[in-house]
Amino acid sequence: MRFELILLGTSGAAPTAARNCSAAMLRTDTTDVLIDCAENTQRQLLKAGMGMGKVSHILITHLHGDHYFGLAPLLSSLSMQGRTSPLSITSPLHLRPRLEALLELDKYPLRYALNFHTVHPDGSFQLPNIGDLEVFAFPLQHRNETNGYLLREKKRETNIRKEAITAYDLPWPAIKAIKAGGSHTLPNGTLIPNTDLVTQPPLPRSYAHCSDTIYFPELAGYVDGVDLLYHEATFLKDMAEDAARKGHSTAEDAARTALAAGVGQLVLGHYSTRYESSAGHEAEARAVFPNTVAADDLYRFSVPFRGR
Amino acid sequence: MRFELILLGTSGAAPTAARNCSAAMLRTDTTDVLIDCAENTQRQLLKAGMGMGKVSHILITHLHGDHYFGLAPLLSSLSMQGRTSPLSITSPLHLRPRLEALLELDKYPLRYALNFHTVHPDGSFQLPNIGDLEVFAFPLQHRNETNGYLLREKKRETNIRKEAITAYDLPWPAIKAIKAGGSHTLPNGTLIPNTDLVTQPPLPRSYAHCSDTIYFPELAGYVDGVDLLYHEATFLKDMAEDAARKGHSTAEDAARTALAAGVGQLVLGHYSTRYESSAGHEAEARAVFPNTVAADDLYRFSVPFRGR
Repeated sequence: MRFELILLGTSGAAPTAARNCSAAMLRTDTTDVLIDCAENTQRQLLKAGMGMGKVSHILITHLHGDHYFGLAPLLSSLSMQGRTSPLSITSPLHLRPRLEALLELDKYPLRYALNFHTVHPDGSFQLPNIGDLEVFAFPLQHRNETNGYLLREKKRETNIRKEAITAYDLPWPAIKAIKAGGSHTLPNGTLIPNTDLVTQPPLPRSYAHCSDTIYFPELAGYVDGVDLLYHEATFLKDMAEDAARKGHSTAEDAARTALAAGVGQLVLGHYSTRYESSAGHEAEARAVFPNTVAADDLYRFSVPFRGR
Repeated sequence: MRFELILLGTSGAAPTAARNCSAAMLRTDTTDVLIDCAENTQRQLLKAGMGMGKVSHILITHLHGDHYFGLAPLLSSLSMQGRTSPLSITSPLHLRPRLEALLELDKYPLRYALNFHTVHPDGSFQLPNIGDLEVFAFPLQHRNETNGYLLREKKRETNIRKEAITAYDLPWPAIKAIKAGGSHTLPNGTLIPNTDLVTQPPLPRSYAHCSDTIYFPELAGYVDGVDLLYHEATFLKDMAEDAARKGHSTAEDAARTALAAGVGQLVLGHYSTRYESSAGHEAEARAVFPNTVAADDLYRFSVPFRGR
């Protein structure tokens, strides 16, 4: 059962020859969610061998160009390719006015329904589910309204052991009660505890995406315990003042949040074009939070199930 | 003395993993002109090792996204990089309304002056010079208003042979007259013909850019005798009906225009994504006009001086 992140761009405000600007895809077996959509995201998707067929929702973190200038070309290509299934875009500020002239939406509507949703929460805020994922938006602290997003597998149903059904000849009402956590009493009065009757499903896996933000202590609460955390790391800590002034984080800032939140793994991106390599970011973050990877474009992170 | 074309994108309406959408740079020693600006043009420039420092004018052929969706990100990056010199954009329909919301031009003006010019001519129409280039716009026949552009070196001054100045002890008024084409009469009455006194400068080199168009016979007149012709070749001739219906050309169409116009070399691009290679386009065009190259991204064409 897949729960995978593909980073489509790891450069900051401007691209380099080697790095695209921000976009990421979270994939499960049935649901793909695109988060941010910088210029050239459609070509990054092609290079990653991915299509937009299973994407019904795009989540935009904020309306700076390096996070959404790829929308018009992508939406336009999807229409040319014959897409008919609706597409929803969620962002913290209204996007339609920025796209309608460019796409001439009123003159040439796309061949599929395009729905815009605006949300910028004060705290962690649950959005409607997307396929098999629960989705939450939470506030980041950047120069304009910016959302972080958390995506989590829905809780799986508890499974009754097949051998228990056979051995105890369990009728349907008993199965229902056991699935809800109940024990079972046999006709002879023996109590079979719930744990002997069921197998616990794996814990829901979760992913949080923190695009552009300064460090702030409350952020760890919003991403508490996620299996995988993407966090921007525009600068190294010797430029902490510039980072704060520009609304960005250092690699160490990202690692502090990862540590405080107790996440499984930390992934870095959104590097300033001043850095030729991200090795410094990785080293700086690992000193605080060892399980860190400073990603390059098209890196994939497959999230395993964690023990209970 | 450089006169060079760099093709930044050779895909048609949508990019592929291997091809960007349309953009091209024409370079001389002192002047760079960007023609069209698809999504991701800024990264193609980086890959080609080029900047925008010598670009004062961008020429947009038409307002379909695959020819201008890269403007907002490029203009935005230039501002972030600290550009202060003005930039002019010429297009056949007004571009500002499509960019102002996206760039928030009214709220956050760019750090340099951005000037929009609109022109869609009925015939060949001279625009103001750009640096050392004369520029002409001419109409193409596509689904919306579309300009072709022709760029030509200014005529160079005739040079007087240094040895003639010494040998005949030519005074300044005589030099002026000889430069203007006159002969020279020595004090002893001998007439020295102009051709013995001057060296003819090389002929101005020229480039024409035909982005999206159906075949039409008058086009050859607009690009008559250019040294280098870029012409779209979206389809092969077995799809001539689709080409015409969609406002595009076949490789053979492009070659017929090149032949009728007597151009030096033909360069093809803007291939439909249905073609994995452009080998078929090259073969089809060469059957009509042998000096054809079907370009891939980042191909460079250096134009030599032609004999008089």
